[in-house]
Parts: sequence; C-alpha cells; structure tokens
Amino acid sequence: MPTDAQRACFEAGIKFGTLYHQFAGTPVSPDSTRSLETAMAEAIENQPYCESVTVRIDDDRVREAIDHGNGYTELTGTLMDVTMRIEYDGITAETRMEMADGYPLMKLERVDRGE
Amino acid sequence: MPTDAQRACFEAGIKFGTLYHQFAGTPVSPDSTRSLETAMAEAIENQPYCESVTVRIDDDRVREAIDHGNGYTELTGTLMDVTMRIEYDGITAETRMEMADGYPLMKLERVDRGE
Amino acid sequence: MPTDAQRACFEAGIKFGTLYHQFAGTPVSPDSTRSLETAMAEAIENQPYCESVTVRIDDDRVREAIDHGNGYTELTGTLMDVTMRIEYDGITAETRMEMADGYPLMKLERVDRGE
Amino acid sequence: MPTDAQRACFEAGIKFGTLYHQFAGTPVSPDSTRSLETAMAEAIENQPYCESVTVRIDDDRVREAIDHGNGYTELTGTLMDVTMRIEYDGITAETRMEMADGYPLMKLERVDRGE
Repeated sequence: MPTDAQRACFEAGIKFGTLYHQFAGTPVSPDSTRSLETAMAEAIENQPYCESVTVRIDDDRVREAIDHGNGYTELTGTLMDVTMRIEYDGITAETRMEMADGYPLMKLERVDRGE
Repeated sequence: MPTDAQRACFEAGIKFGTLYHQFAGTPVSPDSTRSLETAMAEAIENQPYCESVTVRIDDDRVREAIDHGNGYTELTGTLMDVTMRIEYDGITAETRMEMADGYPLMKLERVDRGE
Repeated sequence: MPTDAQRACFEAGIKFGTLYHQFAGTPVSPDSTRSLETAMAEAIENQPYCESVTVRIDDDRVREAIDHGNGYTELTGTLMDVTMRIEYDGITAETRMEMADGYPLMKLERVDRGE
Repeated sequence: MPTDAQRACFEAGIKFGTLYHQFAGTPVSPDSTRSLETAMAEAIENQPYCESVTVRIDDDRVREAIDHGNGYTELTGTLMDVTMRIEYDGITAETRMEMADGYPLMKLERVDRGE
C-alpha cells in the first residue's frame, strides 16, 4: 500500500497538472496578468488537500512573448512561476514550477510530517 | 468573398468557442466565482476585435452543482451567463450565452453597422 | 435579426475557437500526430452544423518545435493546418487556419447558399 | 529531500491532472470515443516517465449523458476509466481513475521498486 507521504505527492502532482493544462493557452497581456494569477490560484485552492497556491505571471516575459501586432500572447509555463502547498493526513508537500535551462520544470521540493 | 458583417460574426464565434473551451472544467466554488469571472472577461478581451465581455457565474447554481463533500464543482455552460460585443471594421456583433430548455445556448443577437 | 449567413459564420467561429482552445497544449510528438488529428476532427464534427473537419499536424514542424530532451512539444496553432465546413440552414461556410507571416490565422474563406 | 518513490508519485499525479484537464470538455459521442481514447493515451505517453496509459470511454455512459437533441456530450471523469504506469528511477507507480460513490476518483494503487 502507498504511504501517506506518497499519496501527498500524488495529490501535489494532480494539482500541478490541473493548473498547467487548464490554463495554458489562455490569451494574456500585461493588462490581464493580475486577474489571471488570482483566478488560477483560487481555482486550484478549491481542490482537495490544496492549502495554498501562488501564481506569478511575469509581465516582462509576457511583453517579450508578444511578438505580433495583436498585443497578447498565450499563457505557457515559460511565463509564470508557481508554488503550491499540499496537506494530506498530516503530511506537507511543497512544490514549485520555475524555469530551468530555458524550460519550465515542475519540482517536488519538500515532503514533511508536520508537528 | 465574405462580407464584413459575416467576418464580424465569424470573429464573434471564435471568441465564444475560446471562452467556453479554455475555461470549462475549471474548479469553482462560491469562494472563487468573482475572480474567475474577471479573469475570463479580461482574457477574452485581449483577442482581436473583442470590445467587451461580461461573465456572470451564478453562485446559487454553483452551490446546487456541488453535490459531493469536496465543496467545489467544475465550470460548465450551465453555471454562467456571458455577453460579448465584437467590433470588426465598423460592424458591431452582440452575442450572448444563456440557458434555454436546460442547456446553454450561444446566440448571435444583433449585427449592426455602427454610426 | 441576424441573417442565416451571419449565423452560419458565427457557428463556424465557435467550432474554430473550440478546436483551438480544447486541444492547444496537448503533448505531441511525431509518434502521436496521427491519432491526435483524427480525434480532433471527430470531436469537432460532433458539434451542431459541423459537416466536416480536417486537421493536419505537420511532423516536420513538430520535430523543429521539440528543442529539449523530452522528445515532445505542446500543440499550438503554428504546428497544424485545419479546414472546416459548416452547413447552417442551407448556407455553407468554409474556413481554414494556416500560417500567415509566422502566425496562425483563422480565416473565413467562403459563404455560399448551396443549391 | 524527497525520495525517489515520492518523486515517482508526484510525476504520476502530474500526468493525471494533465490528462483530465486537457481533455475534459471535449465534444464526444459514441462515434468518436475510440479515436479520443487513442489520442488521449498517446498524448500522455509522450510525457516524461510515463510508460503506459489506457483510456476507456464507456459508450453506454456517453449515450446516457446525451440528453438533448444534438447527439453529443462533453467528456468528464464520469464517462471514462483510466490506468497509468509511471517509471521513475527504478520505481513503478500504478494509478487508476474510476467511479466511487458516483464520482470519479484518481487513485494511487501501487508503488514498487522494480527488480
């Protein structure tokens, strides 16, 4: 049987896959980054065991990605940094998505039994 | 060749399909309806020719759709009302999504040459 | 009141927005292009008034987009060509998505009253 | 530092969240279930550490979900059963989504060190 810590990590992964594939492709410009960050965080925090989510969409990277006349681009992992904390049966899992070697990487950072 | 009015209607349809299929499936609860409404409207307003979008997610319908212990549901067309105004080369197209016979219907309401 | 031809164009746009935002972001490699093309076409053909859809994902463009070690990329408009034919109350609308100036453009090509 | 087994479970969760939120909302009818199953499995198998995916969309449940004249519905977790096997640095994680008490549940079934 999987351990509680393993289940916490599975739950953490589900939230990351959800956040990414639900919102990737959303039209985004510097005028709409703040509302999209808030909606993404609050949406994923609805899911079971998800204690907190922070999403930061980088306005400068959004501007660089807008290379045509329409003034917007589509959200991808390269434009944002995300952290999440999952609490599952007394286990805390902390995860992060950030750029590594030019690609967005989803990372499991810490798995702790809380006190 | 298609007319300007026909092109305006094509653009209006694109925005509706985008809004629906980008955001359907998003985890939603009464705690996150306002931020999701704002993000959806601002995201779609980034698209070409899209002058204004209003999204209203009905908290009561969200509560009714939450029929399990987790306290959230997934966004579908039955939970929201949407209006959009498209401006394309002097043509205004007004569209709406609302419930009809128990199903969400995307409707083209008016196509006008503005003054 | 909108004309039948305008409604046909609105329906055509809905299908294009749906196809794009439902499937953009899907992990894709040269090993999975054929199954994704078929699924996209058959899924959208389910929608009302949608007579036929063709999707061609370009294997060479997919290979060029895979610039990291994982061997896959995410589907975007730059990787595919799409055609659709909508039939609405005797009106035929033909649409296409293809690259123009380095960007994918959704185009309304013809609107005809069939015989 | 997280263990290899915990990382395997995190990766397994990512794939499940991806599969669900990439494809939920896709228009589906009994005529398009087979192509959608194949495309979903092949798409997710592109992702790192994902050894095998099976997707079975239940035609009878699809028919029951089609309760209006259009002849199709939108894909949700209630219409499909999914299994996945993840291989991460010698660890195998087996996962499954199936109905439990009327809701689709994503489950971590086994985590093994392979021989």
